[in-house]
Amino acid sequence: MSAFGRIDGLAPYALVEGLRARAWRGERMTIAMVDIDPGAELPEHRHENEQLGIVLKGILRFTVDGETQDLGPGETWTIPSGVPHSAVAGPEGCTCIDVFAPTRADWEDLPRLEPSPPAWP
Amino acid sequence: MSAFGRIDGLAPYALVEGLRARAWRGERMTIAMVDIDPGAELPEHRHENEQLGIVLKGILRFTVDGETQDLGPGETWTIPSGVPHSAVAGPEGCTCIDVFAPTRADWEDLPRLEPSPPAWP
Repeated sequence: MSAFGRIDGLAPYALVEGLRARAWRGERMTIAMVDIDPGAELPEHRHENEQLGIVLKGILRFTVDGETQDLGPGETWTIPSGVPHSAVAGPEGCTCIDVFAPTRADWEDLPRLEPSPPAWP
Repeated sequence: MSAFGRIDGLAPYALVEGLRARAWRGERMTIAMVDIDPGAELPEHRHENEQLGIVLKGILRFTVDGETQDLGPGETWTIPSGVPHSAVAGPEGCTCIDVFAPTRADWEDLPRLEPSPPAWP
């Protein structure tokens, strides 16, 4: 199997309404480009997977363990295993990169959308 | 300590001449925004860390386990633990996101540059 792929060839995972994750993974990590529609919300949740990420485009109001910040392009997060977090996209929506360890095996139970071009770039 | 940070506040790791990695990490992963100057080259190497990544800007000629492709924005790689790989940036240089598991503890021995704005966006 080739080591190479294309983000627009991935069928997005529909995590919640207005949020699409184009993800691929190895044995130890899942990486996703995540598009969030304007004002769409990811309610507070937590998971065993450690999560790191960065905003590529737009604004994301991110709350981690009770601390809230409006993050723009180039701003980052580091979420230890089990720490509660939530997010809501700004008025233009946003695109982020998120990585998780271990892999998000639980996403395999989510609905998948047809492959389509991401909002980024 | 805050969960949040900024890519332009990170002191780049000078991996090789013409390559700067602005990295942060958790317990299980390192994530880096990597700027590579036009024509700069990362010679073939391998490491225990699994590596996933994506081009954000420019072109990267990437070779993984003997397979070579010119990758542009939105093109991705998945490199299993221990698999040899090398890369050379295109004539405009490139910016990538790379993630590694486990963390790149070995990078702590590398020279660090002063914080500066990345080439992206």
